[in-house]
This record gives sequence, C-alpha cells and structure tokens, in this order.
Amino acid sequence: MKRLNFISIISAFFLPTFALAQDGPSPEALAVAESVYLTPDTIIRDKAFEAAAAAAQDAIDSGGDPAAAAADALAAVYAPFINGDFIYTSVLFLVGGFLVFFMATGFAMLEAGLVRSKNVTMQLTKNVGLFGLATIFYYLIGYNLMYPLGAWMVDGFLSGVWGPGVLESVGVTAAAADDIGYASTGSDFFFQLMFCAATASIVSGALAERIKLWPFLIFVIVLTSVIYPLQASWKWGGGFLDEMGFLDFAGSTVVHSVGGWAALIGALILGPRIGKYKDGKTVPIPGSNLALATLGTFILWLGWFGFNGGSQLAMGTVGDVADVSRIFANTNTAAAGGAIAALILTQFLYKKPDLTMILNGALAGLVSITAEPLTPSLGMATLIGAIGGVIVVLSVPLLDRFRIDDVVGAIPVHLFAGIWGTIAVVFTNPDANIGAQLYAIMVVGIFTAVASAIVWFALKATVGIRVGNEEEINGLDMSELGMEAYPEFSKG
Amino acid sequence: MKRLNFISIISAFFLPTFALAQDGPSPEALAVAESVYLTPDTIIRDKAFEAAAAAAQDAIDSGGDPAAAAADALAAVYAPFINGDFIYTSVLFLVGGFLVFFMATGFAMLEAGLVRSKNVTMQLTKNVGLFGLATIFYYLIGYNLMYPLGAWMVDGFLSGVWGPGVLESVGVTAAAADDIGYASTGSDFFFQLMFCAATASIVSGALAERIKLWPFLIFVIVLTSVIYPLQASWKWGGGFLDEMGFLDFAGSTVVHSVGGWAALIGALILGPRIGKYKDGKTVPIPGSNLALATLGTFILWLGWFGFNGGSQLAMGTVGDVADVSRIFANTNTAAAGGAIAALILTQFLYKKPDLTMILNGALAGLVSITAEPLTPSLGMATLIGAIGGVIVVLSVPLLDRFRIDDVVGAIPVHLFAGIWGTIAVVFTNPDANIGAQLYAIMVVGIFTAVASAIVWFALKATVGIRVGNEEEINGLDMSELGMEAYPEFSKG
Amino acid sequence: MKRLNFISIISAFFLPTFALAQDGPSPEALAVAESVYLTPDTIIRDKAFEAAAAAAQDAIDSGGDPAAAAADALAAVYAPFINGDFIYTSVLFLVGGFLVFFMATGFAMLEAGLVRSKNVTMQLTKNVGLFGLATIFYYLIGYNLMYPLGAWMVDGFLSGVWGPGVLESVGVTAAAADDIGYASTGSDFFFQLMFCAATASIVSGALAERIKLWPFLIFVIVLTSVIYPLQASWKWGGGFLDEMGFLDFAGSTVVHSVGGWAALIGALILGPRIGKYKDGKTVPIPGSNLALATLGTFILWLGWFGFNGGSQLAMGTVGDVADVSRIFANTNTAAAGGAIAALILTQFLYKKPDLTMILNGALAGLVSITAEPLTPSLGMATLIGAIGGVIVVLSVPLLDRFRIDDVVGAIPVHLFAGIWGTIAVVFTNPDANIGAQLYAIMVVGIFTAVASAIVWFALKATVGIRVGNEEEINGLDMSELGMEAYPEFSKG
Repeated sequence: MKRLNFISIISAFFLPTFALAQDGPSPEALAVAESVYLTPDTIIRDKAFEAAAAAAQDAIDSGGDPAAAAADALAAVYAPFINGDFIYTSVLFLVGGFLVFFMATGFAMLEAGLVRSKNVTMQLTKNVGLFGLATIFYYLIGYNLMYPLGAWMVDGFLSGVWGPGVLESVGVTAAAADDIGYASTGSDFFFQLMFCAATASIVSGALAERIKLWPFLIFVIVLTSVIYPLQASWKWGGGFLDEMGFLDFAGSTVVHSVGGWAALIGALILGPRIGKYKDGKTVPIPGSNLALATLGTFILWLGWFGFNGGSQLAMGTVGDVADVSRIFANTNTAAAGGAIAALILTQFLYKKPDLTMILNGALAGLVSITAEPLTPSLGMATLIGAIGGVIVVLSVPLLDRFRIDDVVGAIPVHLFAGIWGTIAVVFTNPDANIGAQLYAIMVVGIFTAVASAIVWFALKATVGIRVGNEEEINGLDMSELGMEAYPEFSKG
Repeated sequence: MKRLNFISIISAFFLPTFALAQDGPSPEALAVAESVYLTPDTIIRDKAFEAAAAAAQDAIDSGGDPAAAAADALAAVYAPFINGDFIYTSVLFLVGGFLVFFMATGFAMLEAGLVRSKNVTMQLTKNVGLFGLATIFYYLIGYNLMYPLGAWMVDGFLSGVWGPGVLESVGVTAAAADDIGYASTGSDFFFQLMFCAATASIVSGALAERIKLWPFLIFVIVLTSVIYPLQASWKWGGGFLDEMGFLDFAGSTVVHSVGGWAALIGALILGPRIGKYKDGKTVPIPGSNLALATLGTFILWLGWFGFNGGSQLAMGTVGDVADVSRIFANTNTAAAGGAIAALILTQFLYKKPDLTMILNGALAGLVSITAEPLTPSLGMATLIGAIGGVIVVLSVPLLDRFRIDDVVGAIPVHLFAGIWGTIAVVFTNPDANIGAQLYAIMVVGIFTAVASAIVWFALKATVGIRVGNEEEINGLDMSELGMEAYPEFSKG
Repeated sequence: MKRLNFISIISAFFLPTFALAQDGPSPEALAVAESVYLTPDTIIRDKAFEAAAAAAQDAIDSGGDPAAAAADALAAVYAPFINGDFIYTSVLFLVGGFLVFFMATGFAMLEAGLVRSKNVTMQLTKNVGLFGLATIFYYLIGYNLMYPLGAWMVDGFLSGVWGPGVLESVGVTAAAADDIGYASTGSDFFFQLMFCAATASIVSGALAERIKLWPFLIFVIVLTSVIYPLQASWKWGGGFLDEMGFLDFAGSTVVHSVGGWAALIGALILGPRIGKYKDGKTVPIPGSNLALATLGTFILWLGWFGFNGGSQLAMGTVGDVADVSRIFANTNTAAAGGAIAALILTQFLYKKPDLTMILNGALAGLVSITAEPLTPSLGMATLIGAIGGVIVVLSVPLLDRFRIDDVVGAIPVHLFAGIWGTIAVVFTNPDANIGAQLYAIMVVGIFTAVASAIVWFALKATVGIRVGNEEEINGLDMSELGMEAYPEFSKG
C-alpha cells in the first residue's frame, strides 16, 4: 500500500508536445514508444467494429433491423467512454443507496437496544413496518412530489406532480435515458427513497415504549408521502429555498431536523412514559441492550458515508471523485469528533463516561456535518462534529427539564445538531449566507411542526395514539403483539 | 441533491452537427468552445506516450523487452476506455459478491434469533461451518461442474467438467483474460460461490434444534459440490433448461427452491422437534432473540441487492447500469410489499401483527422477485412481493398441519415463494412461457428432492442424523458442543 | 447468470485488420457495420463541444473566463476516459475503506460477545473511543508520518513529516490533483486511516475485563499517532524495509502483528484476570454472547475484502481489476480454510467442535493470507488459511501455559498467524526472500514490543493501568461506568 510516485504528467496535460522530465526516457525509449503508439481510434476500432458486425449479423438472422442493431452495439462499446459519467454517478447512487438502506437496520438496532426488553418486539415491528410503508408511499406519491421538475403549482410552495414514480424502460439506450447527463432514474429513485425512509426512522425512536403501532404507521404514511417530499422539494426539487441560496448538502435540515421536529411534536402530544418523571425528578430508564445500541450506531456511521458521499450527485470526474473522497473523510472525522467530545464531556460532568451519550455524540457529529460535508477541512469537520457532540450531552438533560421524554435521544441528535449543522455551513462555505440558512431552518421547522401537529392531533382525536397504562407497564410486546423479543431471558 | 437539468444532448447524439437548442450558447461561446476543443486522440496522446516511454525505459534499464513493455503500458492507459465494460462488470461482481457474502451473516443471525437459546451455539456453528465447506467444495468441484461451457456429457443432464476452479493469472493482460467480453474469472467465481453458499444456508434453518452437526455438514458438502451446481448448470451453465427458454434471473428456482426442497425433504425425514406437535395441536416454540432475527432479515435484504443486481451480469453501458438500478429498486419494493402484506394479514387474521411473519414476509417478497427483478414496474414488483408475503402467512400453518416442523419458516419463504416467483415471471416478461417455467420448477424440484432424499437416507442409515431425545431436550449446545451461547442469561 | 460466450476479440486486439472468426458475420453484416461505424472522435465530439460551449456561455454571462471554463468542461467530459484509472482507484479506496471501517464494528461485536456481561459496556466504550481517537490522531500526526514521501529524517528510521493531513481542494482539477496517476488524497487518507484504527482494535480485545479505560485510550493515542505510522512507513512509506525487498501486501506484519505485539506486551504487564489461573490450572471464562461474537467475526470477514482487495492500490486496468478479484476469492477461501481447520482440529482434539476456536480460526486464516492475498492459487490460499487456523487452536493453550491471559485470542490470531502469513509469502511469490521477511518480522516486532513496553510501563508507573480487585470482580461496567449493558438480564 505504498503511495507511488508516477512521472508527473500534469505539465504535459493539454499541451500537444512531449514535455518530459529531465530524468525521463532516453531517445531509444522514446523511439520505442513512438513505434507502439496507437490512437484511441485505432485501438478501439476492431472491438467496436466486430461488435457492430456481430449485432448486424444477429439482426439479419432474426429478421431485425441490422443498422439499428449495429448502432446500438457500437454505442455499447463506446459507453464507458462517452457515458462514463452516467455510469459512475448511477453506481454512486446504488452503492450510496444500499449504504443508506442499511441505516434502517442501524436505527432498528439502536432503538431496540435503547428500549426496555418488554418493548423490543414492538420497536422492531415499527422499524420494519415504517421502512416498508416509506418504500411504498414514496413510490406512490412522494418521489414525484419531491421532484416536480418545473411543475410548481402554488408559486413554489406546493408542487403539482402527484402520482407513482416510473423508472426508465428495460435496457434503455443513452438517447432514451431520462437524463443522460446525470444518472439512471432507477438509481436516483433508490437513493432518494432511502433518505425519506431515514426521516421516518428518526421519529420512531423518540416515541418508543408508549405509542400505538398503527397510529404511528399512519403518521409515517403522511410523513413519507407528503410532509417530507413537499419540504424536500423546496430545496432539492429546485424550489424557493434552493432559489434563495439555502445550502443543505445532504440534509441536516431537510432530513434530520424534519425527523426531529416530527419527533418533538409527537413527544409533546404523546407525553412522557409512566415513571419517567417522578416528584419533579427524572428517573433514568436504561436501555436493555447496549451491544445492540452500539451495533446500530456503527451501522448508522457506515451508512452515513453513502448518505453524505452519494449527495455529491456525480462521480465521473477527477473533481467529483475527489470531492466524494473528501466527504467520506470529513463524515468519518465529524463522527469521531462527536464521540470523543461526548466521552470527554461526560467524564468531566459526571466523572464517568456515558456510552449512550458517546453513541449519540457520534450520531450528532454525523448530523452536524451533513449540511456541509465537502468544504470543511478535516480539522474543521472534527470541530463541527465535536460541537454536535457537546450539544447532545448538554441538551438531553434540558429536554428532561421540560419533561419531554425522548427515549433514544433523537431530538438532540437530529433536531438540535441538525440546526447546528445547518448554521455551521456558513463557517466553511463562502457561498452560504446565514440569513438563508436561518430562514430555511425556520420555514422547514414551522411547516413540519404544524403539519405533524395536525396529524398527531387528528390521530389522537380519532383512533388514539397512546396505549393504555396497564399495557404500557406490562410492555407493548405482550400487550399489543403477544410476542416477547427475548422470551427466555427477560424479567420485564 | 437536486436533479440537474443539463442541456439535452440526446438529439445531437450520433449526429455530426452541432444541433444546439434555441436558448443555447451565443456565437461568442461557440467560438471559445471551438478554440479549446481537442479530440480524444490529442488529449490522451501525452499521457499514453509518456507511460509507454517510461515503461520502455524501465525495460531497457532492467534488460527486458522495451516494445512489449511499452505496448502493455499503452494498453493500461487505454483500459478504462477500451475495457471499461470488463472493469465495470467485474466491479459489479465484487460488490455484488460481498453483499451476497453478507447474506451468510444474515442467515446466521436470523436462525440464531429464531431458535431457542439452548441451541444457538449449534446454529451458529452450523452456519459458519456450512459457509466454509461451501467455499471449499464449490472450488474443488462445483464451479466447473456448473459452468461446463459446452462440455456436456450425457445430453445436457450431466456435465463433464470435474475439477478445481482456476483463476486468471496475476496481472493478466486483456489479451490473456479468460473472457475479455465479460468479467474477470476471479470476480465471477467469487460471485457464483456466494449463491451456492446461500443455497446451503437455507437448509440449516429448517432443520435446526435437532439435526446432528456432522451429518448436516456432510449434506452441505454434497449439496454444494454436486446437487446445486449440477441443476444450476441446466440453466446458468447453458444447459437444457436454458435452451428451452426457462427464465430465472437470479434464482427463485435455481437457488431458493433448491434450498427449500432440500430443507423440506430433510424436515420430513428428520421429523419434528420433541413437543412441537402435541395431541394434534401445534405448540408454538418462540425464538429466543427477535432483535437478532430482525438484524438477520435486514442483512439479507441488504445482501439481496447484490444477489439480484449482480445477476444483470453487466454494468458497462447505460442500459446495463439502468437495469441494475431498476433491479435494486424493484428488489427493495418487493421486500416492502412482502413485509407490509404480512403485517396487514396477520393483523387481520390474528388481530395482532406477528413480527416473525413480517420478517419472513419481507424475505418471501425478496424470493418472489428474484426470478424476474428487471421487467416488472415498481407497482408490479410490490404486488409480486406482497403475494409472496401472503403465501408465507398462509402456508406456515399449513406445514404445521402436515406436522412438517420448519424452525425458521425456510420452506414457505424459499420454496413456496420461490415457485410463485418463478411463475410470476410470465406476468411481466414477454419472453417467458408458463410451460417452460412449470417444467423447470418440476424438473429441478424432482431432481433436488430425490437427490436430497438419497443423501439424507444414506446419512440416516449410517451415522444417523438426529440427536438423542435427552440431548434435544437439554439443548444441542451443552450436549453436543459443551458451550452455551448465553451462559450468563439462559434459563434453558 | 450464464457466462456468455462472446465472439472472441482477443486475436484482433491491437491488430489493424478485421480478423473475424470463420463463422463470423456475413459480408452483408460487415457492410452494415462499416456504414454505422464512427470513431471515438466523432462520437464524443458533440457531447464535448456542447459542454464546452455551455460552460463558455455561463462564464460569459457571469463575467468569468470563458476559455478556462470551456477547457474545464471539456476535461470533465473526457475524464472517464483520460482519468479513468484515477476514478477507479479512488472508488476502490472508498469502497475498500468503508468495508475496513466496518471492521471496527466487527471488533466491537466480537469483543463484546467474548467478555462477560459485566464488562460489555466497558468493552463497547473502548471500541468506540479507540476508533474516534485513531481517526483524530492519525489525522493530526500519523498520516504524514507514515508517508513522508522522501522526507526521511534519520536514514530511514524516523521520518520527518509531523503535522496534520491535508486533503485536496474542493472540486480539484486533474492538473491540480496531488497524484493524478494514483487516486485522490481523500480516498487514500480514508483508506489508510482504517488500517491504523484496526491495529488499535486488535489491542483492546486482549486486554479486556481488567484494563482501565483512560490509560488504554492514552496507549491508543500513542499507537495510532506514532508507533503504527512510524513502522508502517518503513514498508508502505517506502522506507528501509521496502527497499530491502520485504513484502507485506496488506499487513500481516505491518498491521496485525503490530497489534498483536502491543497486545502481548500489554497482557504481560497487565497480568491475567482474577480467577483465570488457579492452582496451576486454567479456568475457562466463557464469553457472554456467542451470537454477537459470530456476528463480529462475519463482519470482520466482510471487511477483509476491503482490507486486502483495496491494497491492490489500483483498479483501472484489466490486470488490476482481475487482481482485486483474485484477492477477494483468495481472502474468502483462506478464511474458510482457517474455520474448517479449526472445526476439524477441535473435533479431533476435544471431541467437540469449539465455536470460539472456529471463529478465531477464520480470523487467523484471514490474517495469514493478508501478507500475500494475490499470488496464491485458490488451493494454496485455502492451505495457508488452514495452517493459520491450526496455529490458533494449538497456541491458545500455549499462551495459557505461560499465564498470558488474552481474553479474545487476539495474540494467536493477529500475532502468530501474522508471522505465519508473512513467512508464507515466500511459498507463492517468487519476488519474496525469506531473509527479508524474517528480518522485517524481527525489526517490527522488537520496535513495537519495546515502544509498547515503554508506554505501558510509563502508564503503569503514573496513572496505573489496572482496575482494583473489587472493581474487576464486580465488573467494570458498574464500577467504572455505572452502566450495565444488559441491565434486565445479567446475573453478573
């Protein structure tokens, strides 16, 4: 793994001369190079020609159009060259997408580890269910709503395209691709879907251990089909927040604070768990499985490389792949900064490092860097993440003071660090302006809070959102699902 | 993450004119573009020439052949252009392959979560052991048997190439690559091996909690070295099922139903666990760790992107990468369909959603889409997956009625949904015909069932396949392995 | 998934004739191919020209330099062709890097599974903490120290570049990239960092259940900022071990034995856990969660594809991607060899297969192949891994005889198998010489052992490294952190 020193070709790039270094090849070597040199045209000719001829032959044999078949075959041979950017960017979305998909697993494990064992089956059910519903409803409504592509209805506030997403046809040609200058629609849909699902995952943790299954899932449907896509279109669909210069690279606001606002409003309306606040004091309710919680955090950390890296939206040039690389490195170091800040701060404040705070510190670091993972230096990224970690450690007790019971710490991690990350863009990106950042934080926050409140209140008024006291005390697993997560171990 | 609207280059593609849009560049801009324009030949010349000259110099210095070295260096510079398809497809197999590898982890966690804690160490041991043996025996026998490449022995039924797999030489040149029009042999072997191992993983779950370790592992050896590769060669090796038009994109039949048949026959011969069926009633035996089972399901879901996506077998053109993208999106939505169908159906049937059914519903959705993940629309893929989920919910009690004890639900998931998926190909792929699909389901089923029965009976008659009653009641972990999985927790 | 037989283009490659096979296209098909054939120059012209014109127009509109903008746009269109190797190799590092990142999760789960439940929170805290500190200190000091790039201070023993790593600028052009013939600095940093962190992870398992948190983390800081980078520079930074012909492809010595030596010295200075050795006998202390340990092993196995595959350091040519493929296949089979060897050997020695030995056998197989995953055949790779598995099974009791208490078996796996793997290079790589291999093993071993001993003794003499007896007996989780990992289950 040694970093090799190739002959520098930089100076010769774009210059039609052979500007070789002084200790370069001898005249003999140059003569050999001259004798073997072939132009790209020569070198590709036989491959392309044979493929075209073979395709023409096949078409002739099967009664098809030989000229069309030959042209297609030719285009296929040239594809890595002429459509390399399309392929690279599609690959970026596919790899980024499966990494962000894995974040659903991370959320499930984190939350399963941080609830009590009597509520683990329910938390797992919610996580699988929300992901399934996010997939279906983002397809049915959300995707086209988020990317109206010019079809805005009410001056940028409400977009006009409602209807299921449609992928490019099988074996699409370059000429027929939806956007040959970008990436395949399938890869774009796959990638964007995962962001929508992540938003829903954020909510489930905060409301754990007392919310009913079906009302929660109905909220997820509204969130993933309307609330998330609509506000996301304001920035990523080219809407009014984008036009006014709001910058949010991978979604500190668009994804994380939206999930955080929905969770906060839900937690307020739902109220705290029984026994969480007693006689003015906060009673700690430890999670049942910190190994799972740590696993979930690490998986989220892993998935975040896809989350932030894929949001570069291009990988076919030196600049783009180098930017994706910067983003990977910055994302990682921001998580490290958040974790170490929480480690040190909890040692200082409580004399004992607190693992759940360290895990949430890492996640807060990740959320903090998400609005701008590209422009910071490694040092700045570490600092931005570290401040995210500090925010979490300081704001968890604050929420408790207001008797807002957030089971996994989702509100500090995704909302507070999301706001911080959105503001922090101005420190490293000269194109950012604090006004647009604050305005977007406010607009998205108010919209999400109001919309969420309407849905939560509607659900509360109709089907009810909270399980009965007895069900809550006995645990949701037995009372609601009749199935324990650890039937041979748990003491309740 | 905004979808950019680049200037459309579609109309100009393949036309030797500068057909620019009306709101396009001004004459001034066109003149600038004309002045900086360089042909590929010009732009690559210095890089290629310098590399060739440097290689020639090295060869001269070390007494090698400068012309050959220069030609190799030239080819290397041109590789991303001329061999881009080879590189892309190899990368597809490597990334797809490590995702499918991870499915071994998914199976291990799913099964460890669904058995009782007294059998967890044994289930883990089986899963690690079967993967190790699959790796070794697919290399020793299976790979070449599966891909006879024209060397069929008995008219397409038995292939003639027995012997260990051989990879391409180190630093192979394009001219010496085994199949420069496809992908590297190493990547192909790596990818195909993972499918073989997955087939074996399916069996281990169904037979859990009562089968002896070594007889099971001997069955795995026969399955991965002969049974799986032989029948797989009928389709993927270009054998008679392939020639008759049978379609199975990634293996609903070739992988999943084969594993399912082997499991079904094994379960029939092995008999149910003690206490599973009592006085004509089915006694539920809950899994010991639903968090692990959920983790395993999510990991399988993740791995399936590689399983189905990699089976496109090409990624170097716009059409291929767009197809891989379709496959990712369809695979995901089929899993969602299966999970949500099981969620709704268990709520409806049992008044309580059943997490293990939801997990198996997701897996059944994945198996259902595996025979044709490319041609369906997102909506059809969701539906195909949802029907898979329904099949699982309805067939689990059916198996119990026949006293077939399938510990993890592998038979409904992999066999029944595998059959469904194989049939469902005809609904979206116009090239499919129901006759060939049914014939292949039948032929592969009979072959696998008979071959498995022979092996299971041979093992039963010689070494025995089932542990003693006392061992089973005490748990296989202590009685067979002397090692508990959770020594500090389990109550038995 | 059928391996297609494309028309062989091998014979025609590099020959400026249309040497078609006898059963090739008809004259008619050849004529069609001739009529549609376009040179790369023609086919790319419109795309490149339009991009350049559009960029020029944008520059004119915004008052920029149109010629520079057009040239940049042109370069971007040509990038997949002219910089394909840079992009491919950067992608290799990013994908390889996130896989190696995931190994941190693997180590955390493996170790959490192999310690007693009373020490799980502590072990998780150490693993998250060490990764965070490795990230920060490799950035602050380690990276530049490891790659001095010609700036050696004291004749190759001590390198002279101290200071934080710096990434390439945002949107870097090909001309301004740090090393356009290699990969982006960001991807290289990201990838190399993960190796450094892995070295630290190795140490934490061996010293579990009795070492204090902060002294351990201080050791990690020294290890990742100085000890690891310094010795790694001797080989991978182009230092004296590299110059003398020492071969270590992905780090059997540079990573694994370094972690192993640091762990061994730490274990010797720290002493065994209370109760581990009693009256001259070894008391087995079983791990608390073998499902987690198996999960961790599988994750490590997965991550190793990135570890070894990424160390090819290039992916832009047929030879390189085929080599990465060989490495994936060989890495996998070596792990299988190690696991199966341990399975058989423990059956033979103890009459019962031992899951923890099988897991460590797989890991030892992986470590063994790490020094040379490329040149072995699949058969040889299996054998090299199998010997690694045997080494682990035989050396675990050996360590116990010397009362060296290695909680997870890190010393046999990483140090002993690391030495074996480093030696085994000579069996398959003709460029290797046993003298250089042994010399490097010795030099790196002595350096790491002495440096580690100095740090451990310094920590012991100042802050102390071991918790009190009472704390150890009660478990580190409650006594040091006040937080149980499984508060509802554990019996202590």
